[in-house]
Amino acid sequence: MSRMDQAYALLEAECRDRGVDLDAACRRLAALEVETPSWGYGDSGTRFKVFRQRGVPRNPFEKIDDAAVVHRLTGACPSVAIHIPWDKVDDYRALADHARNQGLRIGAVNPNLFQDDDYMLGSLTNVQPEIRRKAIRHMLECVDIMREVDSSVLSLWVPDGTNYPGQGDIRRRKRWLEEALREVYAALEPGMRLLIEYKFFEPAFYHTDLADWGMAYLAAEKLGPQAQVLVDTGHHPQGTNVEHIVALLLDEGRLGGFHFNSRKYADDDLIVGAIHPYELFLIFCQILEAEQSDDERVASTARSIAYMIDQSHAIEPKIPAMIRSVCNIQTQFAKALLVPWHLLRERQEANDVLGAEAVLREAFEMDVRPMLYRLREEKGLPADPIKAFYESGYEEKISERGFGGSGW
Amino acid sequence: MSRMDQAYALLEAECRDRGVDLDAACRRLAALEVETPSWGYGDSGTRFKVFRQRGVPRNPFEKIDDAAVVHRLTGACPSVAIHIPWDKVDDYRALADHARNQGLRIGAVNPNLFQDDDYMLGSLTNVQPEIRRKAIRHMLECVDIMREVDSSVLSLWVPDGTNYPGQGDIRRRKRWLEEALREVYAALEPGMRLLIEYKFFEPAFYHTDLADWGMAYLAAEKLGPQAQVLVDTGHHPQGTNVEHIVALLLDEGRLGGFHFNSRKYADDDLIVGAIHPYELFLIFCQILEAEQSDDERVASTARSIAYMIDQSHAIEPKIPAMIRSVCNIQTQFAKALLVPWHLLRERQEANDVLGAEAVLREAFEMDVRPMLYRLREEKGLPADPIKAFYESGYEEKISERGFGGSGW
Amino acid sequence: MSRMDQAYALLEAECRDRGVDLDAACRRLAALEVETPSWGYGDSGTRFKVFRQRGVPRNPFEKIDDAAVVHRLTGACPSVAIHIPWDKVDDYRALADHARNQGLRIGAVNPNLFQDDDYMLGSLTNVQPEIRRKAIRHMLECVDIMREVDSSVLSLWVPDGTNYPGQGDIRRRKRWLEEALREVYAALEPGMRLLIEYKFFEPAFYHTDLADWGMAYLAAEKLGPQAQVLVDTGHHPQGTNVEHIVALLLDEGRLGGFHFNSRKYADDDLIVGAIHPYELFLIFCQILEAEQSDDERVASTARSIAYMIDQSHAIEPKIPAMIRSVCNIQTQFAKALLVPWHLLRERQEANDVLGAEAVLREAFEMDVRPMLYRLREEKGLPADPIKAFYESGYEEKISERGFGGSGW
Amino acid sequence: MSRMDQAYALLEAECRDRGVDLDAACRRLAALEVETPSWGYGDSGTRFKVFRQRGVPRNPFEKIDDAAVVHRLTGACPSVAIHIPWDKVDDYRALADHARNQGLRIGAVNPNLFQDDDYMLGSLTNVQPEIRRKAIRHMLECVDIMREVDSSVLSLWVPDGTNYPGQGDIRRRKRWLEEALREVYAALEPGMRLLIEYKFFEPAFYHTDLADWGMAYLAAEKLGPQAQVLVDTGHHPQGTNVEHIVALLLDEGRLGGFHFNSRKYADDDLIVGAIHPYELFLIFCQILEAEQSDDERVASTARSIAYMIDQSHAIEPKIPAMIRSVCNIQTQFAKALLVPWHLLRERQEANDVLGAEAVLREAFEMDVRPMLYRLREEKGLPADPIKAFYESGYEEKISERGFGGSGW
Repeated sequence: MSRMDQAYALLEAECRDRGVDLDAACRRLAALEVETPSWGYGDSGTRFKVFRQRGVPRNPFEKIDDAAVVHRLTGACPSVAIHIPWDKVDDYRALADHARNQGLRIGAVNPNLFQDDDYMLGSLTNVQPEIRRKAIRHMLECVDIMREVDSSVLSLWVPDGTNYPGQGDIRRRKRWLEEALREVYAALEPGMRLLIEYKFFEPAFYHTDLADWGMAYLAAEKLGPQAQVLVDTGHHPQGTNVEHIVALLLDEGRLGGFHFNSRKYADDDLIVGAIHPYELFLIFCQILEAEQSDDERVASTARSIAYMIDQSHAIEPKIPAMIRSVCNIQTQFAKALLVPWHLLRERQEANDVLGAEAVLREAFEMDVRPMLYRLREEKGLPADPIKAFYESGYEEKISERGFGGSGW
Repeated sequence: MSRMDQAYALLEAECRDRGVDLDAACRRLAALEVETPSWGYGDSGTRFKVFRQRGVPRNPFEKIDDAAVVHRLTGACPSVAIHIPWDKVDDYRALADHARNQGLRIGAVNPNLFQDDDYMLGSLTNVQPEIRRKAIRHMLECVDIMREVDSSVLSLWVPDGTNYPGQGDIRRRKRWLEEALREVYAALEPGMRLLIEYKFFEPAFYHTDLADWGMAYLAAEKLGPQAQVLVDTGHHPQGTNVEHIVALLLDEGRLGGFHFNSRKYADDDLIVGAIHPYELFLIFCQILEAEQSDDERVASTARSIAYMIDQSHAIEPKIPAMIRSVCNIQTQFAKALLVPWHLLRERQEANDVLGAEAVLREAFEMDVRPMLYRLREEKGLPADPIKAFYESGYEEKISERGFGGSGW
Repeated sequence: MSRMDQAYALLEAECRDRGVDLDAACRRLAALEVETPSWGYGDSGTRFKVFRQRGVPRNPFEKIDDAAVVHRLTGACPSVAIHIPWDKVDDYRALADHARNQGLRIGAVNPNLFQDDDYMLGSLTNVQPEIRRKAIRHMLECVDIMREVDSSVLSLWVPDGTNYPGQGDIRRRKRWLEEALREVYAALEPGMRLLIEYKFFEPAFYHTDLADWGMAYLAAEKLGPQAQVLVDTGHHPQGTNVEHIVALLLDEGRLGGFHFNSRKYADDDLIVGAIHPYELFLIFCQILEAEQSDDERVASTARSIAYMIDQSHAIEPKIPAMIRSVCNIQTQFAKALLVPWHLLRERQEANDVLGAEAVLREAFEMDVRPMLYRLREEKGLPADPIKAFYESGYEEKISERGFGGSGW
Repeated sequence: MSRMDQAYALLEAECRDRGVDLDAACRRLAALEVETPSWGYGDSGTRFKVFRQRGVPRNPFEKIDDAAVVHRLTGACPSVAIHIPWDKVDDYRALADHARNQGLRIGAVNPNLFQDDDYMLGSLTNVQPEIRRKAIRHMLECVDIMREVDSSVLSLWVPDGTNYPGQGDIRRRKRWLEEALREVYAALEPGMRLLIEYKFFEPAFYHTDLADWGMAYLAAEKLGPQAQVLVDTGHHPQGTNVEHIVALLLDEGRLGGFHFNSRKYADDDLIVGAIHPYELFLIFCQILEAEQSDDERVASTARSIAYMIDQSHAIEPKIPAMIRSVCNIQTQFAKALLVPWHLLRERQEANDVLGAEAVLREAFEMDVRPMLYRLREEKGLPADPIKAFYESGYEEKISERGFGGSGW
């Protein structure tokens, strides 16, 4: 028996003792899908400098090529998010076909409301009606693109805000935003979802129109069931209990998706799971617990979450950084799958503070590599996807691209 | 002409130039009422030490005596909040009469869900049904007391939360809380309001069941129009734009009241306006702008806000600290009254970022002492209430009380 | 072969592949000593409530009894810190003997500069010379006690600070503090160390005289080699990179010790490792890397660190919470022992960002329970110390104490 | 008598009552010099977008032209900081002459250690010796430029840091940095100062080599008296008491200068005084109190501070934003000049917490516009510099420049 098989057997025995079915956990893990973003394959950076790397994609088609590599190596990333206009092409069906031919599909469509000069003082909340109109039209254009690429998720980040007290009328801006979203929502087809992101700050530095989950929730709640909240793990004030927000949105049927990344300070956009892995695990605990809820609305909300990566690889090689991100997500997801929920409930009901805490922490402290290896083996994937990438020759191949375009 | 009169005349001239009616501003200022808390007159402190001061009240009646002094000297504090069981008495009508006899009324009634041993792991969200029941009964008792003291505000802070991941089931606790609030809400009479406070953390250190405005809003929204949100200025993560939250809750008709205090770090409970006076000014700007809204729901919400002080005077003499707090509120409120709204709107519409900012900042930089003196003169109040307090002999008188009870 | 033996064998094989000697790691782990605090066995809480638990110690002797139980079950806690005057006794030699008879020794002596009424506005930095003198005398008394109990560590937390701008003269206070510390330092015998703690805020809420590592460092640096900095893991602003501070203080030979605990918000004083386990691991990485430094000053500083727990168990049963804390420290320390330093260096030198990061993260993701079990087996300790505690009957025995005194 | 004269007379009378000499205060205010940065006149923005404005300078000479306008209108900005290589010119003497001809001088020289591709993983702390060498050479080049432009301040921001745990060896980087600074320091001529800036985070997101004042202090202290710390007001963790750091550095003779700006969240680089004006006032209080110290080292340190603006005007018109910044500094500086220090000391010594606080706050609440107007009148400056700018026709004139270069 190989070491990994021995380790799997040991883990299985321990899980059995704790009432956890390891094979079932592996199956759930195998079904986990994580969307990667087209812009994550291009150059990005900070306001101080974007370091350009050789081999980054020169166009949307090449971004999809890179995303396809990540999917081939991890088996977990069958869709790729696009960003308009960064991924503007003449023929979106051709783009979707290009994806399909490599085993991918187009995922969320992301409008851009921050790079046009007109948006300096706001897009959907701009005091000038014609600029609000322009922003709405761009959103509607994205809905059209969704139809063409067969996407079901419109992923909206409203970067609008102000830099100084008095600069804008907060309540008027709120109403303009609500008005704009109503129009966009009305254009959605059945089966399409509008995911509304929030962000504590940046690029606005005094007030951000959608600054927290409550503001995004309120916007979604006024629209209807096809509108939900998108949680970007890096978009909160320091100390925020993100898993609490996740639990709450699940309970309200309003958690639509995630933008995964990690942060130590502000919206650092580092590789997910790299800074505070326990937090990522606790988020998955809330989700997996909800997946088993008796309340069908909660359970189906949990099962319909769109898991997406949104990072800014300033200094890392892009494709390995993306693979690393996917593996980190799988690792913490796998650990959360090892939680014996019945035992947790039992100790919670017994007011056993230390005992209940231990149930979660012990799952986190387990080594889940045997699960990941088993999974890869069964799917015919390389045991070490990053190593496989470096051995594949793809890096050399794309270096011919020279210096490509910015991810953004 | 006295210096103050000269200064008033100069201010009036400047206001006239800016299109602001100073006399009208003074009238609005004169109508501002700020509720002081009975517990603010007793000893309080930190977990490390409560320093006891000579002369603090020994019972609820003496607390009301002290509150009456603050009202006599400031003319702005006609009501006093009470806290059950700290202010438990046999005869609440007698307590209300005691207040009335000194020109006061009983304001908000505050239940206590954190000092009973049963509440160690939660009150309204406790996993044990009998403890949840006990907490609900306490809330209903407070509604009864409201009737007896003729109070219209039930001011609810739910301190419940957990200290460790896994300790509690976040979603179950959320539902228990909703269930409990439904029962309490049903007991309210017409004209009574339930104000739901939120707090980022403390005394719970991992998750707090009502941790932010969104959670309090959601709870209120499920109950009905008599439930609103209470904003404690010190209960937010660092960096939070509190005036934005204020604007939003006004726009939704859900801003019910304030607990004023100030903070540099966590929930420091310092004298309001002592650490970040500009923030307090900006909060009042949002409110005064909303008072003039065309939207009647917004305007009437703004006009019905319950302004309350909630501080912990650990090292300050209690009564002077309370007077100082009231004066600080009046000062920032007065400055906000000097904002020329038409000019602000004009510059906002012209996309004049610096110009719009200047409109607010300039009002803040004005010296409003002439307004305060004028106001006090007209009401027959002492020009310097703290000085008047020290000269009144009250401090010596109450020193006979010896060392009284804790504010809490 | 038992499961644990199999798991150990697998871990050993993997370590060998990575160039890590697992047996050596286990030996280093076995030598790790963690001091527990006498006050951690008594009641403590928040400013809102101290929940009293049955069975807590009634006096310093009983605190030592409880500390001895923790040492018997973990084998890792041979010393106990005391706090004066909480642990004031007539005969300190008797207290030291009581400890020795149970296999313990007295560790750090902690003066108390915050609970005397005189210290309301400062102790060593009080504007009144007689209060400064009193505080200095208390410190000197603690040095005397150190001699009697044979302690080598004076662990100083200066809680002094101010609540309002202007309340104190920051620079005068700084000089008073320096003056006081010079006098205390002069009283130290060779072999004694003064460890100077810092804290971001609380109980002071505007400024704290020793607010960060830099201020504590500066104070230590002016005194001499027997003064070092004490890092309390919960005493930093949000986002602070604590392991960076640890590295820096090691490099300067000024890291004297730790107060371990964990926090999500402020100084929450939760069980160490419960909120952000990766951070604890990264701290140990810095230390273990420094232990192997070529620079003898750095290496000996690292090897002389005083590891101490300082927590406030508000809702947890005290002794199990302490055992849990010790186990959490051992767990993260064990993981840090699995880092292959040569490989890390190699990848750092190759500018392999992802590769270098992986070296640390992979060690963290390993399951180190086999190391802990092996260690306990070899020392004849129970495999599960918390379970062993509950089975020992000690809890029932101490319940006879009834409700003891506050830990503080 | 004009309104302003009346207001001045009233202010003077009040000051006299408080023992403050208003004319002397005005003289000190008149002597205040604030350096503006060449890069503040060009375009800048966030990582999401740099909005380009018509009329921004196309080269270093035009930046100086704009700085000269600010000086002509405010009378307070006789020097301009330059940044290499943004302000690289063939003939630095010509640049200095160009400044001189307009009544300006070149102030601090700022090296750039973040925009060269080689610096992606560090400059002075890079693991590759040849990159460290290159960075040192750049610093030495800046010292040469200082000689040519007759500058006495080398203003160093080291942006180096890492994004992931393990990426770099923190202690080795520390030593490389110390080594590099020693070489640069040795190249300074007498009269030249090296000001070492620190920053909490960004562009590095895991650890920053000089992350806080303590690290900058330590670096300066190892070099010698010509090295001091530069405080950028936006470079601290949330909640940091910046005025405390200022007081401490003054007391140690190590406060060399400021980069002024304001922030609500991270390093927002907004107009100084726009977000938290009271904090700016309190910083000036520390400085002005130190200017009068009996300790000559402290007083001379305070009197030698280099006051510099460092902002990023993302959405504001550049020149008016700079004028606004200067006026905000003057406003808060003027208020601090109104503090009656003897009274403050008296109340501090009487342990009068509220009274001492009031001394500072009351100065802040005064309206100092009469001082500013008096000052401008005496210097023959326009009463409203921003209005004067818009009326000057300069804006139209520079619009011929078209879209200039980035400030950065």
